[in-house]
Amino acid sequence: MSTVWSSRYALRTSGVKSSAIRELLKIAERPEIISFAGGLPSPDVFPVQRFEEACRKVLRENGASALQYGPTEGYAPLREMIARHIARYGISAQVENVLITSGSQQALDLIGKLLINSGDRVLVEAPTYLGALQAFNVYGAQYVPVPVDEDGLQTELLEEALRSGPKFMYILPNFQNPAGVTLSEGRRHQLILLADRYGVPIIEDDPYGQLRYEGEHLPPLVVIDRENLRRDNGYSIGNVIYLSTFSKTLAPGIRLGWIVAPPDVIGKLVQLKQGADLHTSTFIQCVAYEVARDGFLDEHVKRIRQVYHERRDVMLEALHEFFPPEVAWTRPQGGLFLWVTLPEGVDSEGLFRAALEQKVAFVPGDSFYAGNRHEGSRHMRLNFSKPSSEQIREGVRRLSLAVKQQLCSVP
Amino acid sequence: MSTVWSSRYALRTSGVKSSAIRELLKIAERPEIISFAGGLPSPDVFPVQRFEEACRKVLRENGASALQYGPTEGYAPLREMIARHIARYGISAQVENVLITSGSQQALDLIGKLLINSGDRVLVEAPTYLGALQAFNVYGAQYVPVPVDEDGLQTELLEEALRSGPKFMYILPNFQNPAGVTLSEGRRHQLILLADRYGVPIIEDDPYGQLRYEGEHLPPLVVIDRENLRRDNGYSIGNVIYLSTFSKTLAPGIRLGWIVAPPDVIGKLVQLKQGADLHTSTFIQCVAYEVARDGFLDEHVKRIRQVYHERRDVMLEALHEFFPPEVAWTRPQGGLFLWVTLPEGVDSEGLFRAALEQKVAFVPGDSFYAGNRHEGSRHMRLNFSKPSSEQIREGVRRLSLAVKQQLCSVP
Repeated sequence: MSTVWSSRYALRTSGVKSSAIRELLKIAERPEIISFAGGLPSPDVFPVQRFEEACRKVLRENGASALQYGPTEGYAPLREMIARHIARYGISAQVENVLITSGSQQALDLIGKLLINSGDRVLVEAPTYLGALQAFNVYGAQYVPVPVDEDGLQTELLEEALRSGPKFMYILPNFQNPAGVTLSEGRRHQLILLADRYGVPIIEDDPYGQLRYEGEHLPPLVVIDRENLRRDNGYSIGNVIYLSTFSKTLAPGIRLGWIVAPPDVIGKLVQLKQGADLHTSTFIQCVAYEVARDGFLDEHVKRIRQVYHERRDVMLEALHEFFPPEVAWTRPQGGLFLWVTLPEGVDSEGLFRAALEQKVAFVPGDSFYAGNRHEGSRHMRLNFSKPSSEQIREGVRRLSLAVKQQLCSVP
Repeated sequence: MSTVWSSRYALRTSGVKSSAIRELLKIAERPEIISFAGGLPSPDVFPVQRFEEACRKVLRENGASALQYGPTEGYAPLREMIARHIARYGISAQVENVLITSGSQQALDLIGKLLINSGDRVLVEAPTYLGALQAFNVYGAQYVPVPVDEDGLQTELLEEALRSGPKFMYILPNFQNPAGVTLSEGRRHQLILLADRYGVPIIEDDPYGQLRYEGEHLPPLVVIDRENLRRDNGYSIGNVIYLSTFSKTLAPGIRLGWIVAPPDVIGKLVQLKQGADLHTSTFIQCVAYEVARDGFLDEHVKRIRQVYHERRDVMLEALHEFFPPEVAWTRPQGGLFLWVTLPEGVDSEGLFRAALEQKVAFVPGDSFYAGNRHEGSRHMRLNFSKPSSEQIREGVRRLSLAVKQQLCSVP
């Protein structure tokens, strides 16, 4: 069976395996199952009609160039819009600081390609975003995991980890995937201080930052870096590369993300992107620009916040009502996920199978750990953006049955 | 200036440089310049109205799922359509043999990621597609170039090259980019025979195969491989991975290509693609499916052939009329390009500057050589799909002035 190919696979592919859990997650897609497993936005908030108008406008007014090859950097009006948009969060970027990517996942792949030699260490949160591990693994990354708590990355443990010489840190400061926790303002300053002291730069991944349901917006790392260090490089962006996406605000099916970085880094990433996919769809960039413009994106994000805020509350209430007291969970101030911690001895993969019998699904925690995956076996990630409030309540009830059953079987 | 980053670039990026010629090609985009430089389809043949109808239909009937995350393999109806479509060319693929990519460029990147360890040799045509070299370079490929003539890859030179142990061959059999030549049927059989004898598999890149303006369609390598070798693997696809794209038949701005390979190779590529960009835009796949379906793609390709056929003829006639007899060029039976060979001593980069003064542009040949780029310095690639017939005639006239001027200055 085509061993002519498999005998020729590159060394880097040896770590790339389909997990048993991915197979199980396919079962989670069956209609009778209430799934907290995906990281999917709710289709209830997709601005379908606005997309239809945007497509018509782009094709009528601009069809020939929207369907043609375009620049690798991205569609200039969209890059300008992003630069204006993030300025409101204090990030002072010019158009030349912005590279459009085919979703944030491509940003992670390009970052890995740019920075990781096989064996290089990357400092990550424990737990961290599974997709980043997938992107970095292929370039031979090793990891230095630093645990998070309710206030995000535990910066008091950072210094020792930095001494091991990581090439960069990969940090999700807002409503982290999977734990749902947010890096506190004090720790943000501490992190930037240590990054500077040890000369270790930061990739700040911020897909959910706009989806805050309570509390105050906290300054992005890229902003604190600029303010604290008063770098004199003329670009206002130094030690931190910032990533974000339209996947959680417009729609994930358009696959549009972006990287904000100093121009020389952007220049190098553009060359890598040219080899990777030439450029992101011109058409979809033109359409996203038309959808988002004239203040629509801001209004639309308000609506998303409202819907997800309610769903988060329903999930928190249901957990409180149905779950036994020895189970703990995070209380995310935004984003799509919360993180449940089970008592010692409960194995989330066993729980996953029991949950499937109850017709409810989640992602077992071990997928989100770079090093010792066993650390994750007491945890589960629950998504509250996709299921309806009714499904959330019923799903948590079903899940509580599986949890209680597993608790009884703990020796 | 952000040396914190540049000091951390991975080794693989050292070979990734912006060429001087790329800077010059930016000048070629000025409106007063007639450009034969790009590899762009003509916007005159973009089915803009059909795209508008397709967008409306997809969003009205299927908006929620078209804007959502989708499977990494691609949109199932589109994969099925591609399997049916290529069956007409004798390629017997099932849906599980087809992976949708973000343009053919991503297919090349994934192939490089899957197969190339740093230092591995790849057998390529000389000249070959620049984008493949860019994709493979980043994985540390070395090259074994084998020259082409009017009948494509010179298979009589192949055996020696195969003895050097390349990991795979990268071949463009139809209307090759840049030379415009087509691998003859006899040589196709010879190539497959030698591939089998030396156990060296083939990546068959076929972006232009449907755009044939004269002569008979020749069997793809993937078909000859199956027929000759009668492999008994149950998949009808063995030694050859086949790549193609919608960029030259629907539109390049949608960035949709595909890979046809045995299921185990597809499985591995899916894992790599998941790390690279999760999946290609669901929305754009749904739209392309709606555009192409019900026989539209076939009818549309007929119209493209008509338009490009005429432009090719205009270019051949103009070359005959204006160019001096010591200059030679290929007579492509399809595709977008022809290849001009200048007498010894003429340097195409010098000619490029002279041409820009005459307000006409092309791509100098050296960009298309993996090894000794100097081999390419006598050549230029001319595109005939994008400029109008009037522009082609006038552009060739202008170019002839630059050519004659350079010929006079040859020592």
